[in-house]
Amino acid sequence: MTTHTHQTAPTQYVAANGIRFAYRRFGKTGGVPLVLNMHFTGTMDHWDPAITDGFAKDREVILFNNAGISSTSGEVPTTIEGMAANAATFIKALGLTQVDVLGFSLGGLVAQTLAIDEPPLVRKLILVGTGPRSGEGMASLTPEAQHIFGASYDEPDHLWLKVFFTDSQASQAAGRAFLKRFRLRTQERDPEVSEKVAPAQIEALGKWGAPRENPYDYLQHLHQPTLVMNGGTDVIIYTVNSYILQQHIPNAQLILYPDANHGSQYQYPEQFVQHVSTFLAQ
Amino acid sequence: MTTHTHQTAPTQYVAANGIRFAYRRFGKTGGVPLVLNMHFTGTMDHWDPAITDGFAKDREVILFNNAGISSTSGEVPTTIEGMAANAATFIKALGLTQVDVLGFSLGGLVAQTLAIDEPPLVRKLILVGTGPRSGEGMASLTPEAQHIFGASYDEPDHLWLKVFFTDSQASQAAGRAFLKRFRLRTQERDPEVSEKVAPAQIEALGKWGAPRENPYDYLQHLHQPTLVMNGGTDVIIYTVNSYILQQHIPNAQLILYPDANHGSQYQYPEQFVQHVSTFLAQ
Repeated sequence: MTTHTHQTAPTQYVAANGIRFAYRRFGKTGGVPLVLNMHFTGTMDHWDPAITDGFAKDREVILFNNAGISSTSGEVPTTIEGMAANAATFIKALGLTQVDVLGFSLGGLVAQTLAIDEPPLVRKLILVGTGPRSGEGMASLTPEAQHIFGASYDEPDHLWLKVFFTDSQASQAAGRAFLKRFRLRTQERDPEVSEKVAPAQIEALGKWGAPRENPYDYLQHLHQPTLVMNGGTDVIIYTVNSYILQQHIPNAQLILYPDANHGSQYQYPEQFVQHVSTFLAQ
Repeated sequence: MTTHTHQTAPTQYVAANGIRFAYRRFGKTGGVPLVLNMHFTGTMDHWDPAITDGFAKDREVILFNNAGISSTSGEVPTTIEGMAANAATFIKALGLTQVDVLGFSLGGLVAQTLAIDEPPLVRKLILVGTGPRSGEGMASLTPEAQHIFGASYDEPDHLWLKVFFTDSQASQAAGRAFLKRFRLRTQERDPEVSEKVAPAQIEALGKWGAPRENPYDYLQHLHQPTLVMNGGTDVIIYTVNSYILQQHIPNAQLILYPDANHGSQYQYPEQFVQHVSTFLAQ
């Protein structure tokens, strides 16, 4: 057990394969650590302390910036497979031989690829707000996402109220609470990502989402117990993609939350942590 | 708190509207009781003690036979609406003003109708292995169900191994454990249902499943917090119907279990009880 939390865990560095990876590590030691993979243009600071500290009560939590992101050196690959290879490099550089992996959105694409490419390294997998190769509406940004990312906001952070939450009063209130939480860490915050990150990630997303024949066949090679989670009305990566993942991954459970968009885990952090903990413990 | 369990709770009777309802009631008193609605041709004895006694640790559990079923007098209505009206009559006859309602398969059709028709009576709703009006493959028995119900079995109970479980080794092993559990109660078991039950229930299922315009619109009138649960490969009421329910009920959560058919709750009883308890407690 360390005394560190999401707010206080120091940013550490580990070098491998020519990349200096920034990471933070905290929570209850002794079990299988949980490695979190972040969304499009996000950094370690974009995680919600309500979920990371929630997980940390029962297990070690490892946040990191993948190659080319914020405080990590190197280039952002233009393929999901390249990002997954870098994630594996990072995990092995920590001397870990088995971890649980959670990926959110773009991070969920990386996480599922990592699980397929490195079976012994990944014990269990949690895919949040994400989808399969060639998923519904994934060939490009959805019309809703184009509108949301193209609009201007009073405060830049208010973008996330539209990306992660529905327009309902309850969801927007949960969103404002989330924005407060993810700004709580004041010391040693990550620098914003460079202007090179978004184009590389968009190129990788485009290759992943492009139509192909029998697009979901690859999922039969994903053998880890998997928990797929999303909001019931995700307009960024359509909810049906979570259903498709559950239907095609051999051993997958699905949980969809009511009145929730792309960031259901930030809307229902306590319930989300409980569901994940139940899944990881069983 | 009563000391009764699934195995020992006496069958009690309450009369209302010309029907003498048989029921069993056990578990921790003082909160909102949970009323369970059974599947096609099932009686109180078809519930799995692993889930009923699991629920009973935290809440009062009420099993009952609806009108015309086994130890309850009267006729089985040929509409789901009629069954829901009888369920409401039963609950009110117990002097209860608010309950949580769980329905499995046919019982899930009854439960959702009850929740829509009697909003103040139903606090929260749990729909297991069920679907909406005019759901996919619900106009008649699915081809798989026709095959399973039409086959002969070494022992009659082995039918349930095919109805409720997948063909995987793990699922079939869970099925055999379930068959032992649901035969554990030896005293005062329910009589088998009469030969009049199946035709009336089949007629009601046919009316429910028949194609109609905008079939899912009625679900917008279902305002209770709802938890929809099923196996990921239900061949009796196709799994996609659980997804449709979640997408159309205003406040619904969905949980799908891996490698599970129509009886996922009997395959994963501990996890199922935990998920339901989390939902009811929040």
